[in-house]
Amino acid sequence: MPGEREIISKLRQRAQAADNVIVGIGDDAAVLGGDACDLLLCSDLTVEGVHFRLDWADPRVIGRKALAVTLSDIAAMGGTPLTGLVSVALPPGVSSDLIDGLFEGIFEIAGRNRVTIVGGDTSLSPGPLFIDTVLMGTCLKGRAIRRSGAHKGDRIYVTGRLGASTLGLRLLEQGVRLGRASETERQAIIKHLSPDPRIDFGSLIATGELATSMIDISDGLSTDLGHILEECGCGAVIDANAIPVAEPVRALALDPLRLALHGGEEYELLFTARPENHERIIDCSSKTSLPVSLIGEIVQGKGIRLMRDDVIEGIEPQGFEHVF
Amino acid sequence: MPGEREIISKLRQRAQAADNVIVGIGDDAAVLGGDACDLLLCSDLTVEGVHFRLDWADPRVIGRKALAVTLSDIAAMGGTPLTGLVSVALPPGVSSDLIDGLFEGIFEIAGRNRVTIVGGDTSLSPGPLFIDTVLMGTCLKGRAIRRSGAHKGDRIYVTGRLGASTLGLRLLEQGVRLGRASETERQAIIKHLSPDPRIDFGSLIATGELATSMIDISDGLSTDLGHILEECGCGAVIDANAIPVAEPVRALALDPLRLALHGGEEYELLFTARPENHERIIDCSSKTSLPVSLIGEIVQGKGIRLMRDDVIEGIEPQGFEHVF
Repeated sequence: MPGEREIISKLRQRAQAADNVIVGIGDDAAVLGGDACDLLLCSDLTVEGVHFRLDWADPRVIGRKALAVTLSDIAAMGGTPLTGLVSVALPPGVSSDLIDGLFEGIFEIAGRNRVTIVGGDTSLSPGPLFIDTVLMGTCLKGRAIRRSGAHKGDRIYVTGRLGASTLGLRLLEQGVRLGRASETERQAIIKHLSPDPRIDFGSLIATGELATSMIDISDGLSTDLGHILEECGCGAVIDANAIPVAEPVRALALDPLRLALHGGEEYELLFTARPENHERIIDCSSKTSLPVSLIGEIVQGKGIRLMRDDVIEGIEPQGFEHVF
Repeated sequence: MPGEREIISKLRQRAQAADNVIVGIGDDAAVLGGDACDLLLCSDLTVEGVHFRLDWADPRVIGRKALAVTLSDIAAMGGTPLTGLVSVALPPGVSSDLIDGLFEGIFEIAGRNRVTIVGGDTSLSPGPLFIDTVLMGTCLKGRAIRRSGAHKGDRIYVTGRLGASTLGLRLLEQGVRLGRASETERQAIIKHLSPDPRIDFGSLIATGELATSMIDISDGLSTDLGHILEECGCGAVIDANAIPVAEPVRALALDPLRLALHGGEEYELLFTARPENHERIIDCSSKTSLPVSLIGEIVQGKGIRLMRDDVIEGIEPQGFEHVF
């Protein structure tokens, strides 16, 4: 039973190089060389029973999130989404209301991000509901920000506040629902169900050439930082006190830092930048009203070390990986 | 329980117009205006238990077909495929051999068609194996051939020979397998499992501006011709004796014409053209060694009429539609 990373690694080896492919398998989105600008291409699966349960929320919320996670991939490249495809496989007997709600959510978040849905496919599913969302986006020539590219001495930044999505997921799994949750619980559940892709911020960072590498936090800060480190062959030191822990996590979690470090599905941006760009990064944060935290530094060596009140400990990525 | 056409019709209404979208939801592929050329974008779902069964063939064959049907969508626009994404949801415990075989087939047909696989997604599936294949292609500016565009007096053409795919499917469902099939059965099963997308022919037709409308036969000649007629508001007269019936169908089917008229998953091209282009179309057929048959004419009115030894009868589309 191979893991997701093993599969992707094999596919990367198998994929042929082509003239127009600037970035292929293994980043948040592929980058294709265009004439006036470069094209971005990416897709995400959302599977009932794996990524969501129908009793957790309105179909509209599920549709919205299905496209949101793909928008986040475009954000992680610093791109602007343009056009989308949506493929859905529907269990027999599924109601018109569910289908309408699902697509309402997809079209709602598409519209808000000026994305036109231009096609896709529909099929019967003998099992759960499956959604595959595909986006084509664009970015200025040569400005797409990859996972690779970080250097020793770069600073490490993260947008937003972390940990609430996994907390929200746990609450949902424990039976808490939006209608009968406390205000704090509600915030966590909303962070899980309605992530807000950081398109504008990502695009400002790319346009200003402010980052050396970028990724969105889908598997967890520790795991996704691990992806950046793998690509550049460096290590990282993270300041535990600088990690922005979300309010509901501070209020409700037994070990808030653990959730913030390892919790997945945040869809915040994690990026590295030269120290001299700090002011301009803070400027992007102000312009988009999105908090940005400087949490550490890229260093020589391997792996992630966590600095916690003068004690330094190595930490292992503990985020999410599908194993089949 | 809505049908596939009802869903697509609703989505078409909902989709917003955008400046760069030349063709949106409802054709074989979307067409996006580019600088030097136009871009094509399309996707297809392949679901275990709906589109294939794992005991029918080697995983390599299943992977190959998953991408072949999307290549056929690009062929139906007259385009050239360039870049692909593949998303797969895998049941727990699936073997490495199955995954390797699946991707081997996908990369094999991608390579043969000069397509680079640049990304996708993998997920666990709590149900069947699920594949979504996405292609981006290109065509000369303004040359993509839509489903709409047929006119009264246009001739109707079809590539290849029809009916064998559905015959092959029935044989597989009856338990016949490639290893222990007669030569005639084998031909039908191969047509079903290994469709050959008509990329080169479609591209020649588009480059020469030889067709007024085009579609690939995925749902059956009667149904897919119905799509062309719906778009142009015309009818069609088809000559039963001109319909190219595949050899295994003549040999094994009780009603060969019925299979050729209504059988789906042929992935042949069905197109309409002005009479004066006939010689040039035959020329494309010779250049690609692909048989092309003139089967009828677009006429005023509605629906399809079948001419059979001087008797004309109306026929209803009886091809495939997913109903949920």
